[in-house]
Amino acid sequence: MFKIAVMVSGGGTNLQAIIDRIKDNTIRDVEISVVISNNEGVYALERAKEAGVEGIVISPKSYDNREEFNEALLNAVVERDVDLIVLAGFLVVIPEIMIDKYENRIINVHPSLIPSFCGTGYYGLKVHEAALKRGVKYSGATVHFVDKGTDTGPIILQKPVEVKEDDTPEILQRRIMEEAEWILLPKAIDMIAHSEVEVVDGKVRVIGGLQ
Amino acid sequence: MFKIAVMVSGGGTNLQAIIDRIKDNTIRDVEISVVISNNEGVYALERAKEAGVEGIVISPKSYDNREEFNEALLNAVVERDVDLIVLAGFLVVIPEIMIDKYENRIINVHPSLIPSFCGTGYYGLKVHEAALKRGVKYSGATVHFVDKGTDTGPIILQKPVEVKEDDTPEILQRRIMEEAEWILLPKAIDMIAHSEVEVVDGKVRVIGGLQ
Repeated sequence: MFKIAVMVSGGGTNLQAIIDRIKDNTIRDVEISVVISNNEGVYALERAKEAGVEGIVISPKSYDNREEFNEALLNAVVERDVDLIVLAGFLVVIPEIMIDKYENRIINVHPSLIPSFCGTGYYGLKVHEAALKRGVKYSGATVHFVDKGTDTGPIILQKPVEVKEDDTPEILQRRIMEEAEWILLPKAIDMIAHSEVEVVDGKVRVIGGLQ
Repeated sequence: MFKIAVMVSGGGTNLQAIIDRIKDNTIRDVEISVVISNNEGVYALERAKEAGVEGIVISPKSYDNREEFNEALLNAVVERDVDLIVLAGFLVVIPEIMIDKYENRIINVHPSLIPSFCGTGYYGLKVHEAALKRGVKYSGATVHFVDKGTDTGPIILQKPVEVKEDDTPEILQRRIMEEAEWILLPKAIDMIAHSEVEVVDGKVRVIGGLQ
């Protein structure tokens, strides 16, 4: 089995999508080794528990400094020998030591069509607020490998989602989750688990044309 | 009839799309009063001639300074009492005096999903080179009203277009023209001619939900 760690900070709806798609075999030959939250008491940990998956909390508050927190995070995935780290609404900057060790083995989902509305300061509802403020007719979601920049890594999958005139940030966020994030993230995991993507010159190529 | 001026700099494929859609009545109740090129001898002027539309050249080279050129450009549209100015691959910065006089009555088509790959330096093939370099899976086109910024005006219509792995800038450019630009620009003209769009708080609202 291909082993993944899923890192979360909140409600865990993307985690739930992964759990469900493993269950119905849309994601094939993959198991979640661990769910790591940086926050105590989030609903994502409940979801892990219900799915029979180990859930742990690694909070910056429990460590004297950032280096110790970063090491604890890294150790948690190294100890479990995971093949892929999935950031599913994880609102913590990934340590460079982790990015170095897991080059092209960390993926993130971002709720816009990168390079629109991404980079420092664009997370959660702020992304959708910015999209509505600019008046775009399409937004969407992007799954990408994580490099040392913010949302600058190689793009694996994208999907456009229509913006409607009466959208609020919350409504748009939900539509992008349902129509894009919950589909793209499981699909990317399945593709990576089956060696169907490779990174060449900083760009993702799909092998076998599954896309 | 609703009168438009179409401003061009080169081959005029977007002009041709407008001519064809007027002819087949996809654009209703609109006539092209004038085609203005900043360059002599471009094929767009041939297209105008073949369609029986007046074509004129207003070149910066014919004027002593920028102000005189700008005034000539403005006079050409004012004299013909046009209702809308359509930039169809017009590679000249629109004079501020024209933007002031024709507020929300100048539209432009940009070959990407704004705000991706737009702003100063992004024109023609450079847009598509940048999209391919970033490795996006979708690009597209945007029709927007022109304000004093570069590609910052209110967005009227957008359409995503898939990027394929073996695309060159030229191939992607052509696909975006065929699948988006040549559809969106005529559609925007028709909507504006029939008062189906309005600008509220810097954003476009579609009246009657034609979109």
